Amino acid sequence: MTMFTGLSAFPLTPLADDAVDEEAFSGLVRRLAAAGVDSITALGSTGSYAYLTREERARVVRLAVDGAGDTPVFAGVGALRTSQVRAHVEDAEAAGAQAVLLAPLTYQPLTHDDVFELFRTVTEHTDLPVIVYDNPGTTHFTFTPELYSRIAELPGITSIKIPGVPADPAEARDHVTAIRAVVPEHVTIGVSGDAYAAAGLSAGCEAWYSVVGGTLPELALEITRAAQRGDAAEAAAASARMSPLWELFTEFGGSIRVIAAIAEHLGLAPRKCLPLPLQGLTEAQRRRVAEVVEALGLGR
Amino acid sequence: MTMFTGLSAFPLTPLADDAVDEEAFSGLVRRLAAAGVDSITALGSTGSYAYLTREERARVVRLAVDGAGDTPVFAGVGALRTSQVRAHVEDAEAAGAQAVLLAPLTYQPLTHDDVFELFRTVTEHTDLPVIVYDNPGTTHFTFTPELYSRIAELPGITSIKIPGVPADPAEARDHVTAIRAVVPEHVTIGVSGDAYAAAGLSAGCEAWYSVVGGTLPELALEITRAAQRGDAAEAAAASARMSPLWELFTEFGGSIRVIAAIAEHLGLAPRKCLPLPLQGLTEAQRRRVAEVVEALGLGR
Repeated sequence: MTMFTGLSAFPLTPLADDAVDEEAFSGLVRRLAAAGVDSITALGSTGSYAYLTREERARVVRLAVDGAGDTPVFAGVGALRTSQVRAHVEDAEAAGAQAVLLAPLTYQPLTHDDVFELFRTVTEHTDLPVIVYDNPGTTHFTFTPELYSRIAELPGITSIKIPGVPADPAEARDHVTAIRAVVPEHVTIGVSGDAYAAAGLSAGCEAWYSVVGGTLPELALEITRAAQRGDAAEAAAASARMSPLWELFTEFGGSIRVIAAIAEHLGLAPRKCLPLPLQGLTEAQRRRVAEVVEALGLGR
Repeated sequence: MTMFTGLSAFPLTPLADDAVDEEAFSGLVRRLAAAGVDSITALGSTGSYAYLTREERARVVRLAVDGAGDTPVFAGVGALRTSQVRAHVEDAEAAGAQAVLLAPLTYQPLTHDDVFELFRTVTEHTDLPVIVYDNPGTTHFTFTPELYSRIAELPGITSIKIPGVPADPAEARDHVTAIRAVVPEHVTIGVSGDAYAAAGLSAGCEAWYSVVGGTLPELALEITRAAQRGDAAEAAAASARMSPLWELFTEFGGSIRVIAAIAEHLGLAPRKCLPLPLQGLTEAQRRRVAEVVEALGLGR
């Protein structure tokens, strides 16, 4: 088993008055390490990497490494410009990250060759393992199996973070098997989209790159460990018990606003911890979130 | 007539070895001023604003103001984070820009309230006129007439840059009239999407925010002046003569790669002038572009 398996927890990077709340961030990281997650991915989408300056990002990776103890830390390095990505990679290396996570951010749409060259350039210039971050909801770039395959052949590519899988177990297995067939064996496949995690893990994904795991690690570990011991039914049941939470992710337009509201509700992050212009949930939406948190016993 | 009418030309910001090619950029700006465009928008999408650092952007606006003479300069100030937008606005003010152009960039999707608050905050903190930049192909944010109306009521909003209009003249007029009906009279409506410019201007748009005008200003002025004197037929005919160019924009996945290849072909920008990971057109595509440039007499 490589470190690119199991539960990788994605903490928020809480802001207060438009600056990183270092104490809150370190608290989230320590909480994840104490819970026993398999890795911590700082500066994922949930960690608002795209909104932060180079200096803020370098500092956040250092805080993550300091707070994580023996838990491996991966760092998001995506940026619109290749030279900026390379700068973030250098900073992640210097801070002690054990891998980097790279999404092909877009402003102008990118071609497949553009994205391949981005990964080729980055892997050529670092010894750190690179996780391919496929997140079309934020990047608006769509990978194909062919492109997965070309990129996964590059030295240093170690894992692919895929979007959600079909809910039906057989379809999920077909989906993961099709990706598995085109990437080398040493490259792990990690599911994201928390509502699909149980299905993805039971369908053959070796890892879960998890939003909810960054704030509510016990919940995510329960699903992960059930799937890892082959108990697909229990993993599915544990995930199904969280349906009200997954439904809020959909209803309120994505996971980050909901998970930020949960962290704020639990006192893990200051109020309005997302970078503006993201205002976060309305008061009425926050009350709904609090009700779900209490009903599911997530506030313990 | 305000300065937010007529042809606003969007120059490239050419890079060489991952740094702004200041000489090439200043050359483009001087060429636009000499051609008699009505305004120059530095750091539009064509100007790669989203890829540049704060320092590069501040420098580019200064160069534009220096090179533009009496021609008004507008500056793109969009960024993912509100505080970064405000910093760019301050820099544009200091550099002598006469207005700013603001698109709601997204990584996480934005709500209408998020975008309204972004424009409210920016207009509250600057005396410069603000142009609303609606460019869903790059921002993946979709404005509605209601949101146009709310934002256009803010003090300081002076123009809206809309995407293309329907090709049919009657439908184009209905489209522009519907927007006109919900925004105050002093707010001009400017069309973008160069292939739609003749249709948009003849349908009631007061301005054309133009990619092609930033590199081939005579061509764009011919269309603009015909439309402004009420000669819709000649504007349409001038645009139709450029069909092979508009077709390349579509076929090669957007205007920026094509216009960069044209500027490079004409010696106005160094080879590979776009920021990586944008590699620009392939050699075969560049040959096609060169053929069209020569066939249309654009290389004179």
